[in-house]
Amino acid sequence: MSFRRVVVIGAGAIGSLCAGHLASQAEVWLLVRRSEQADLLNAEGLRITGKSDLVAEVRAVTAASDLPDVDLCIVATKANHVDRAVAPMRGHSPTAVVMTIQNGLGTEEVVRRYGTWRIASAVTFMSGTRIDDRHVEYELDTATWMGPYRPSGIDLDTVTAIGDLFEAAGLRAEVLADLRPAQWSKLIFNSAVNGVASLTDLPHVSLFARRDRDTDLGHLVYELMAEGKAVAAAAGIELWEDPWEMNVEAVSRGQTHDDEYAHVPSMLADVRAGRQTEVDFITGALVREADRLGVPVPLNRALWRMVKARDRSYDEEVTT
Amino acid sequence: MSFRRVVVIGAGAIGSLCAGHLASQAEVWLLVRRSEQADLLNAEGLRITGKSDLVAEVRAVTAASDLPDVDLCIVATKANHVDRAVAPMRGHSPTAVVMTIQNGLGTEEVVRRYGTWRIASAVTFMSGTRIDDRHVEYELDTATWMGPYRPSGIDLDTVTAIGDLFEAAGLRAEVLADLRPAQWSKLIFNSAVNGVASLTDLPHVSLFARRDRDTDLGHLVYELMAEGKAVAAAAGIELWEDPWEMNVEAVSRGQTHDDEYAHVPSMLADVRAGRQTEVDFITGALVREADRLGVPVPLNRALWRMVKARDRSYDEEVTT
Repeated sequence: MSFRRVVVIGAGAIGSLCAGHLASQAEVWLLVRRSEQADLLNAEGLRITGKSDLVAEVRAVTAASDLPDVDLCIVATKANHVDRAVAPMRGHSPTAVVMTIQNGLGTEEVVRRYGTWRIASAVTFMSGTRIDDRHVEYELDTATWMGPYRPSGIDLDTVTAIGDLFEAAGLRAEVLADLRPAQWSKLIFNSAVNGVASLTDLPHVSLFARRDRDTDLGHLVYELMAEGKAVAAAAGIELWEDPWEMNVEAVSRGQTHDDEYAHVPSMLADVRAGRQTEVDFITGALVREADRLGVPVPLNRALWRMVKARDRSYDEEVTT
Repeated sequence: MSFRRVVVIGAGAIGSLCAGHLASQAEVWLLVRRSEQADLLNAEGLRITGKSDLVAEVRAVTAASDLPDVDLCIVATKANHVDRAVAPMRGHSPTAVVMTIQNGLGTEEVVRRYGTWRIASAVTFMSGTRIDDRHVEYELDTATWMGPYRPSGIDLDTVTAIGDLFEAAGLRAEVLADLRPAQWSKLIFNSAVNGVASLTDLPHVSLFARRDRDTDLGHLVYELMAEGKAVAAAAGIELWEDPWEMNVEAVSRGQTHDDEYAHVPSMLADVRAGRQTEVDFITGALVREADRLGVPVPLNRALWRMVKARDRSYDEEVTT
């Protein structure tokens, strides 16, 4: 199976990293929201610096109707924008494979509302920073994990072919027959770390792993993750990695560097910028699964409610 | 019993409202932190506008050693500043009555470390806004509730005399043989409302009382208050007012006014200004009582930890 023509929806950091690298292996199209960005990308190409150094030729459009038939569609918007971004793809490229690559759970189901595409799920651990509309600094060149979203009728070979494409393009990929253990490890980690960061206005600092004094935040992060692990266990999922160990490792990694580690989790970045967060797909998804399975998650539920209120995802009439 | 000479410690909104009014009935001294403020108060007097309209002659000093012997000392700083403010009073005016007037619980015990004074406890419902160092706008002319702090050997008549002094000075007072039912009603209310406001960055809006959608904040506020009520019940305290009804009433009061009701709770104001909050005396006090009594309060404890982290009351080395 080969992917000769690819469209990436969304040219944020992750979408740009995918598009910029895949352009060496396929004809790459980008579906973006703003025409200034499309014009700039078409005129000057997409630039990646940092872990890679390249300028890729891409074709950027702002309307799905301007896209040709594609073999692969990578949905790389924030989770809360997937619905709006994929809706215009209804009826488009029916034989394509669509791969979601969001934080949290549930965007595959959103995609399914708009077509009968075969769907692959991905979680990525690579990261980058948008410098401007056509330039992304590639920071962590860690792997993207991908697996088949079974209800869509996709087979593992198809996902393996996407993994091969990524590797050929210089990106790291890991293909798993069942992505859920990895998805859930990241979900439980993100629900606690992103949630607490959004509410305390703190980046992911060592306090998140401290459990000395009774008021140390580590206690709360630990308890939030214990709730999440109970939900995963009830769902029959054996976690890929222990979220608490991911937390301890992330904050201690920073302490061994000269430069201060102070990663700003994406939900905190959204809150600080006054944007809506992805909390419904992260903590909200965890709480919905817990309710379905009858597992109590009072602390995650409290976080969900407060982040929803904080990021003003409510109607204006309710919050003012 | 008469109070001819009074010192008020702290010239914020509440301290100024007390000093400005009591000056018509007694010689009033003010102990403040900054000499510019003391100089201004001595030169121009203390001005109250709004519900009252007066300029009071006061004597302001910055050192306890410059105070004469007083009959009554009103401690009107924030709860987290009581220790620092009262320490220099050690050995001063041993026959005086000291009245604490903070949010939360526990400042009477802080005062007791520094002298054998008889102590009255107060909670106030009046409010004002500091316009400048010598001028406060008096907004809500509601009552100050006061009662004997029994471990200090004070009798009810002495508190009644303070209540009479307040009334004669044009302030509203209510004297109670047992203040704890009122203190606890306010404590449970403040722990939930101030805590949630500090973390969500929302003023006390109607969302705090809404329980329609699953993510509505009212559910969380209700559950936080239910935990607090369980602690009060275990402590044998019959609440003066139901905190949830106080919450519903406060937000609906606003909706009947033309101008938008959006009270910024004091802890949120502190967070926004980058000051340390009083959370240790509010949510922290509730959690400590819960632990002493063996009552589980997981949601209040989560709030406590996050507000502590948010207001940077941790050592710098821990939070960065």
